[in-house]
Amino acid sequence: MSKSIKKIGVLTSGGDSPGMNAAIRSVVRTCAYHQIECIGIYRGYQGMIEGDFKEMGPRSVNNIVNKGGTILKSARSKEFMTVEGRQKAHQNLVNSGVDALVVIGGDGSFTGAEVFNAEFDFPVMGIPGTIDNDIFGTSHTLGYDTALNTVVDVIDKIRDTASSHNRLFFVEVMGRDAGHIALNAGIGAGAEEILIPEEDLGLERLLDSLKKSKASGKSSSIVVIAEGDKIGKNVFELKDYVEANLPEYDVRVSVLGHMQRGGAPSCFDRVLASRYGVKAVESLLEGKSNFMVGLLADKVALTPLEQAIKGRSEIDRELLRVSDIMTT
Amino acid sequence: MSKSIKKIGVLTSGGDSPGMNAAIRSVVRTCAYHQIECIGIYRGYQGMIEGDFKEMGPRSVNNIVNKGGTILKSARSKEFMTVEGRQKAHQNLVNSGVDALVVIGGDGSFTGAEVFNAEFDFPVMGIPGTIDNDIFGTSHTLGYDTALNTVVDVIDKIRDTASSHNRLFFVEVMGRDAGHIALNAGIGAGAEEILIPEEDLGLERLLDSLKKSKASGKSSSIVVIAEGDKIGKNVFELKDYVEANLPEYDVRVSVLGHMQRGGAPSCFDRVLASRYGVKAVESLLEGKSNFMVGLLADKVALTPLEQAIKGRSEIDRELLRVSDIMTT
Amino acid sequence: MSKSIKKIGVLTSGGDSPGMNAAIRSVVRTCAYHQIECIGIYRGYQGMIEGDFKEMGPRSVNNIVNKGGTILKSARSKEFMTVEGRQKAHQNLVNSGVDALVVIGGDGSFTGAEVFNAEFDFPVMGIPGTIDNDIFGTSHTLGYDTALNTVVDVIDKIRDTASSHNRLFFVEVMGRDAGHIALNAGIGAGAEEILIPEEDLGLERLLDSLKKSKASGKSSSIVVIAEGDKIGKNVFELKDYVEANLPEYDVRVSVLGHMQRGGAPSCFDRVLASRYGVKAVESLLEGKSNFMVGLLADKVALTPLEQAIKGRSEIDRELLRVSDIMTT
Amino acid sequence: MSKSIKKIGVLTSGGDSPGMNAAIRSVVRTCAYHQIECIGIYRGYQGMIEGDFKEMGPRSVNNIVNKGGTILKSARSKEFMTVEGRQKAHQNLVNSGVDALVVIGGDGSFTGAEVFNAEFDFPVMGIPGTIDNDIFGTSHTLGYDTALNTVVDVIDKIRDTASSHNRLFFVEVMGRDAGHIALNAGIGAGAEEILIPEEDLGLERLLDSLKKSKASGKSSSIVVIAEGDKIGKNVFELKDYVEANLPEYDVRVSVLGHMQRGGAPSCFDRVLASRYGVKAVESLLEGKSNFMVGLLADKVALTPLEQAIKGRSEIDRELLRVSDIMTT
Repeated sequence: MSKSIKKIGVLTSGGDSPGMNAAIRSVVRTCAYHQIECIGIYRGYQGMIEGDFKEMGPRSVNNIVNKGGTILKSARSKEFMTVEGRQKAHQNLVNSGVDALVVIGGDGSFTGAEVFNAEFDFPVMGIPGTIDNDIFGTSHTLGYDTALNTVVDVIDKIRDTASSHNRLFFVEVMGRDAGHIALNAGIGAGAEEILIPEEDLGLERLLDSLKKSKASGKSSSIVVIAEGDKIGKNVFELKDYVEANLPEYDVRVSVLGHMQRGGAPSCFDRVLASRYGVKAVESLLEGKSNFMVGLLADKVALTPLEQAIKGRSEIDRELLRVSDIMTT
Repeated sequence: MSKSIKKIGVLTSGGDSPGMNAAIRSVVRTCAYHQIECIGIYRGYQGMIEGDFKEMGPRSVNNIVNKGGTILKSARSKEFMTVEGRQKAHQNLVNSGVDALVVIGGDGSFTGAEVFNAEFDFPVMGIPGTIDNDIFGTSHTLGYDTALNTVVDVIDKIRDTASSHNRLFFVEVMGRDAGHIALNAGIGAGAEEILIPEEDLGLERLLDSLKKSKASGKSSSIVVIAEGDKIGKNVFELKDYVEANLPEYDVRVSVLGHMQRGGAPSCFDRVLASRYGVKAVESLLEGKSNFMVGLLADKVALTPLEQAIKGRSEIDRELLRVSDIMTT
Repeated sequence: MSKSIKKIGVLTSGGDSPGMNAAIRSVVRTCAYHQIECIGIYRGYQGMIEGDFKEMGPRSVNNIVNKGGTILKSARSKEFMTVEGRQKAHQNLVNSGVDALVVIGGDGSFTGAEVFNAEFDFPVMGIPGTIDNDIFGTSHTLGYDTALNTVVDVIDKIRDTASSHNRLFFVEVMGRDAGHIALNAGIGAGAEEILIPEEDLGLERLLDSLKKSKASGKSSSIVVIAEGDKIGKNVFELKDYVEANLPEYDVRVSVLGHMQRGGAPSCFDRVLASRYGVKAVESLLEGKSNFMVGLLADKVALTPLEQAIKGRSEIDRELLRVSDIMTT
Repeated sequence: MSKSIKKIGVLTSGGDSPGMNAAIRSVVRTCAYHQIECIGIYRGYQGMIEGDFKEMGPRSVNNIVNKGGTILKSARSKEFMTVEGRQKAHQNLVNSGVDALVVIGGDGSFTGAEVFNAEFDFPVMGIPGTIDNDIFGTSHTLGYDTALNTVVDVIDKIRDTASSHNRLFFVEVMGRDAGHIALNAGIGAGAEEILIPEEDLGLERLLDSLKKSKASGKSSSIVVIAEGDKIGKNVFELKDYVEANLPEYDVRVSVLGHMQRGGAPSCFDRVLASRYGVKAVESLLEGKSNFMVGLLADKVALTPLEQAIKGRSEIDRELLRVSDIMTT
């Protein structure tokens, strides 16, 4: 264990995701376990600049393991993108005796952490928290599993009404750059077609698929569409296009939106958050810095922050094939 | 008991709602209990015209009490709006020996039933099934209670992310003509403001309310808006308006849409559906016709279909006041 | 409005139930709305004796409308059953300037309130909070609707495994003196038989019913049993009895227990709690005392505490009949 | 692809688990995708003996991906443990033209499959379906992830009432030989102590832990106990023991039981089931036999049935440590 670290700061940054509170709890309790202090930093980097800090002990994080959102709040900070902002933030940490930082967030948050580390040689450790699962160096980001359950639960409800009316539904889910949610939730919800940013199926293929589905005797259909799909039309334009070309279909659109970020975390996300928090704190105590904690082949492992930021989280090709077969 | 009724037909019509299956089950089993036959009619009035019938016994409705949607499917039928269509439908009923009809649906479905009854002197009984609760003669339509739970559950999730980011959310819920869902779910979800078709609060009042909410120290806000609110702007225009006038707010929009119609019915809706089915069948057997079954002051009671169609389901003024007080 | 009341105390007592927090929130905000003060009393009457008080303003109750349990905690107090205990409690209220009391709880809690009122002429108002719905003067106690949903949700899960294995399940639900939960959740979950304290069906009837169910072609069966049923055997003895007499059945037992008290309240319970809180505070301000707020024929109404305590909440006979018909 | 396989039979056996239906659906659709036939075998090996078969096409498995239980039903078969029974079963398969078998179940079911394969050189492939996750050769059995979510959801509810009353709860979860559910759900639910079959903490340690928890300022505690824990007392005896030794605690017991087997599968289990079904069928078509499909380091992989049966699924030691740290 490194002697130098006596106090760790923890913050959440970027879009919130279920499991962030469980990760905060884990960081706080792992600090207590190793008898070092812990400081909660409110509103991400902005709170770091403003010195919005609070001492946290094991009892500060009672009864939050199952809560969505983040008790430390999150915010975007333009000021932190400036040298002056980061200097203020650094001075606040120094003044408060904080020796190291755990940053729970996504790509953008990690970029901030990396720059901060480079400028002040300040120990930082990242924990991936975003529902999109679009981060290299981990098979699972915090909140992703919960979001999948939220999405299939909602599509199950939509299926009730779709099959009662023999309708076609287009369901837009989150994922600007990554189709993980769309692909997995699409398979899980029994979608007839799935459109993701990683693949451009083309409009013809979509029409063919819907025709085939009708011909095969299916009375209703769900198409799951990632926000960032490459088909070149937004979900409402797509509805118009399909209705113009397949008049036998009565298309309805549902944009799931922000509800996907909320809710009590799944057991998987709670356990993962607990594991990530332990690893993040103990890695800092071992003198490591500038890494992201992640899950690789079921083991908690470290990836350099730089790689986590630059790398690309690939879609699972096996799943694309499974999806094809399931829509037989 | 009337001697003449030996076989009852049951159909679902209009938008589906949770509890319709429980009502079908109740109609079928009440027929069996009284040793008369029961015929399921698929796809509402359209299936009646096409003779899409199926004999149903007590075991045909096993394991559906908890299922959303309707196993009999629903559809809108233009043909049933013509005399010819209705004559075909009537002939099919006569040919199949059906003596009376239970129609599960909303206003439009009841209008169809009333016309059919007038033309052919055919016994009909209505069961109100719609999530909007916009039907006169009952405090609760089937599916309304379930939809309220779905909506508060989703807003609870949105609240997680709203309060993590200090954001303002506009959540649009169903209710073109009636604000029941918005008002009740708004109170239930702790909304800061509720916009319903029955009241035009005006844009100024909304801005005032949001300013007051900010000033009172609330860090996030949810505004629940019924589809049919009278404020003269759709929810996206409203977002633009508020952001232009209250730049301190970062507004997000969530349109809940069709998911509100689906899902396993609440216990309340299952029990209510069971009671409605018994009352509908037994009222027909007692020789009554042209009524809607409903809940009035906690008792199952009959209202003439004509009144149910023409009457207006009023919003509860006490609730408006409760809502005001809760946003203190 | 009575001039004399400037500060109201609120406490929760007895078994907790979903909706208690929403009721606390409503009491606190209604006080703020009328510009009077509000004091939260922790751990029921015990906290009143120990002076465990906290000032509460509208922001103290942010984000609790959807939380199960009670933020004021609950406890049983033997000391409050003594004159000395109650004198201490009264002195604490006087010292803190509390003029009136809202007690959220069940029968026992109301008895305490009534005695306290009688001894010190201290204004009290009761809000019925218990999942059992066993209180006279209201059709719905807080938490009852939520508990019904919890129970049918669990039985839906048990039904999955029951019907996969053609098994018979005995499910014990709460209700020592009242069968409301068992009867409603039993109908809602499609139970084949329901045993409640209000009726002694007798063991023979149970065996007959199970035989009939088997003969009718049902492959699995759920029997819902209230804790306090009068059949003279506990649920495990009942299992042995049935297996001895109907060897074709493989009986499993599930005792649902305390989970029935927890969970996020349903929309119904949240709205009801909001209405009850407003009525309780405003009734005190109007100079009323010694009443319980309740729901009668869908309207919020007052019942003298004495009647609420002595009266008996009757089971709905219509529902017993509906239950019979549903098991056809 | 092997030429010889033209028709595959699929069955579910042993205790049911969420995801079995999704696996059946995947097997059926993968067969259709490869243009071979598929037969559903009802009630596991017993139905194989009785010839209780049904042809299944892609539309036979519509709308089951999200259903708990198994549409093919499950049963234990004593007759299949005899040579005569297995011969009858084999003859039925031959008569129906079934060339290969997919068995969805646990240890016992795989033993049956292995014997059947050995006796008749009949191609078999196993898919692990059990909530206990106690099978060697896979990190996840079907239903395990869903059961974890069910358990934490219930404990969240129990926590509401535990913390309202400052009580200690003992919650017994499934797991006769394996503590996977207890350990993961215990961490996920924030349990203060977790008792599993793999470790004998001893009664002293439990008492110490509870004393420490009280001293640390925790007002309520949850202890999660696997059915098969080695502490030498059942959960009710444990309650008596703790109450005798720690009179400051008021202990309540909750035995979760069969509800853990039911419910709509999580997205994870639905996707996993889809992947398993594809792999099982395609492995048979490639001429492989006598394997179990499983998830190893996030990849779908085969393990010889013999190893799957004899091997032992180990508890994750890292998780035990995480659990210790979390209860700081």
